[in-house]
Amino acid sequence: MARTDVVSRFPSEGLRALAADIFSELQRISYDGVGITRESFGPLENAAQEIIARVAAENGLEVSHDRARNLIVTLPGTAPDEPFIATGSHVDSVPRGGNYDGAAGVVAGLLALIHLKRQNVTPARTIKLIALRGEESAWFGKSWIGSHALFGMLTESDLARPRYDNQRPLRAYLEDVGADVPAIARGERLLDPGAVAAFIEVHIEQGPVLEARGLPVGIVTGIYGNLRHMQITCRGEAAHAGATPRFLRHDAVVAVAALIMRMDEHWQRWLADDKQITITHGIMGTDPAEHAISRVPGAARFSVEIRADDYATLMAFHNLLLAEAHSVAAERGVTFGFDDAIINRPAPMDGRWIARLEQLCADAGVAQMRLASGAGHDAAVFAHAGVPTAMLFIRNAHGSHNPEEHMDIADFMLATRVLASALLAAGQ
Amino acid sequence: MARTDVVSRFPSEGLRALAADIFSELQRISYDGVGITRESFGPLENAAQEIIARVAAENGLEVSHDRARNLIVTLPGTAPDEPFIATGSHVDSVPRGGNYDGAAGVVAGLLALIHLKRQNVTPARTIKLIALRGEESAWFGKSWIGSHALFGMLTESDLARPRYDNQRPLRAYLEDVGADVPAIARGERLLDPGAVAAFIEVHIEQGPVLEARGLPVGIVTGIYGNLRHMQITCRGEAAHAGATPRFLRHDAVVAVAALIMRMDEHWQRWLADDKQITITHGIMGTDPAEHAISRVPGAARFSVEIRADDYATLMAFHNLLLAEAHSVAAERGVTFGFDDAIINRPAPMDGRWIARLEQLCADAGVAQMRLASGAGHDAAVFAHAGVPTAMLFIRNAHGSHNPEEHMDIADFMLATRVLASALLAAGQ
Repeated sequence: MARTDVVSRFPSEGLRALAADIFSELQRISYDGVGITRESFGPLENAAQEIIARVAAENGLEVSHDRARNLIVTLPGTAPDEPFIATGSHVDSVPRGGNYDGAAGVVAGLLALIHLKRQNVTPARTIKLIALRGEESAWFGKSWIGSHALFGMLTESDLARPRYDNQRPLRAYLEDVGADVPAIARGERLLDPGAVAAFIEVHIEQGPVLEARGLPVGIVTGIYGNLRHMQITCRGEAAHAGATPRFLRHDAVVAVAALIMRMDEHWQRWLADDKQITITHGIMGTDPAEHAISRVPGAARFSVEIRADDYATLMAFHNLLLAEAHSVAAERGVTFGFDDAIINRPAPMDGRWIARLEQLCADAGVAQMRLASGAGHDAAVFAHAGVPTAMLFIRNAHGSHNPEEHMDIADFMLATRVLASALLAAGQ
Repeated sequence: MARTDVVSRFPSEGLRALAADIFSELQRISYDGVGITRESFGPLENAAQEIIARVAAENGLEVSHDRARNLIVTLPGTAPDEPFIATGSHVDSVPRGGNYDGAAGVVAGLLALIHLKRQNVTPARTIKLIALRGEESAWFGKSWIGSHALFGMLTESDLARPRYDNQRPLRAYLEDVGADVPAIARGERLLDPGAVAAFIEVHIEQGPVLEARGLPVGIVTGIYGNLRHMQITCRGEAAHAGATPRFLRHDAVVAVAALIMRMDEHWQRWLADDKQITITHGIMGTDPAEHAISRVPGAARFSVEIRADDYATLMAFHNLLLAEAHSVAAERGVTFGFDDAIINRPAPMDGRWIARLEQLCADAGVAQMRLASGAGHDAAVFAHAGVPTAMLFIRNAHGSHNPEEHMDIADFMLATRVLASALLAAGQ
């Protein structure tokens, strides 16, 4: 069957109704009176996996679990020794969260597989849906537990982390669900990254960009890494505000303002050059122990956080910050003292996959934009493990991690259609 | 005798030696082991007045006291009913201060009168030196007590002010020195401003401008008034630093930085246009209760203090601040909430006197510049009372109110020469 034929039959009314049913059932089992609660490695995460497993089995897909007890739904290919194609997201939620954060990507993957199965597609490469556990850090203070476990990236101290509300450790929860805790504790790889040809995660956007731009889906260029200076100290010279003229001042507040504005202007230019970065000074202040209305401020402290979807961009923007600080210091007779930078590397998405998803959107007439992900995702763990990784965002109003989260089912079906065509293309 | 002849004989070696002797004697009586201490309305202020009075009497000048027990040294004119010309400054000091802050102006006035007397000048207008008491706020938390008393500007609550170190009230100290406390308490004018044709105060500069510019004297354009907002609150919208792109941010810190930089640029332009202003943001900060490195800051608070030597300039620059805040608010989707402005009016110096002093400096070959006074002075009290007032600053290294204060005797003699020629010109 030609690929275009398969995709053009999507979405069917049947699939749309099935999606609505699954989301309703997930909502029903996990509504806590305020929002949605599906505890990482807890009964309601299990229940959510069971719903997915039941629908998968009803539609003729294979159901299993990996050794971290993530749920695996498989559409076997004709070349089972080739690296497989994976899609997936997580089924847990924050306490009193929304129904779609995580689950939307799992249901999208499930519907895509069901669609291919119903269309009697037998791909060359096996295609797997992974319904991951324990993505939210709200429960154990650790994010992406299910994917970290797969790649041998959990430590003994991670396993000892107590759940926030009852102090029971993660290890006990892993044992409850039947995970291979000894192997996980040894840091054993439960999944060989070389066995995965690609990982494609669909997720609701947690930010407001698609909503603001009026676009149903986004293609993620990378998951932001960040570089943080918790405290930069600008030292000038305290002086009498009346007796010290402009040319003799070394005003720390004006120097910091000058640096912030220079970086703000650079940011604007870099965005215009299609570089995905943010810069934020969340903390700024003079010292209450010595500042005064009538004193030229001799010191000011501030934080900086730079985010970028690409390591080179992150470091280049940081270098620009250092250079501009040097320049402002010389100009205004102040010094900038930087504490050590704390760096979390970005997880760039696979460039070929970004281009492929753009083409598939164009083929399907789905309007999209490229954007970076400010929040972290399991996809970053796969990318850092060396798996070619991509993400599709679905427009979402009112942010995530709250009951007001809102995803339109029409947007969801567009993303699922693009995912199905991507899996089909990759599996052939 | 022609005016140029009188002034050209100044300074004589004799006057220079006399100045050095007087400063030495003032130093000797008031050195406290660390710096100079001459308490307002206390024994060492009395002693300083007595040194001035003794030298004045030795040189044939008349000595008296006004009803606030400020010392008056008089060179009588031939037209005693005409408003007199006054010069003077204060003889008290802060605790552990320097020898010249105040005393330099008194000694300059004394030497100028002695010079005129020695040159047998009999002016038309009477010329008076006023050695004022109680200028420093360090003792009673109130500045310019001697000049305030002269113009009926002390209140009962001022008189009840306790001295900082022993809690004894100002009223008791005024009684000790023999001031007319009942008249002062009634707010009676002890000096009719209409009886004073001019008041010219010589004072060391308390700031670093003349030292930095390499000029011996300065002509004061005005004594700064100020306009203060103790707290301006910029409100934007707190947001996730990763998930919120630039075009959707309402970042309070960047907005405040933008406003600070706009005002800094305006300041530079206004200075180039010869407007004497300062703007200072001594206090600035995000709220520790809600700020975070990874959060777009939703609020920031800052102070502003604008100083100017002229009321219209002060208010115009404040209007510019409000206009720029409005513009930044519109541009960046924030609001600026201003608390009520607290305004202390400037004391502009007399324009004709500024021009006259410039001419006299030029005649005497004394390099000078115009500058505003950031610190307050008795001259401001005379100006606010309606007396045409002028000030001459003498270059001073290391600031004032500390023992490292340093005035060069050569600079002092240049200022004294300009003062003598000014008194001569005004008295004729």
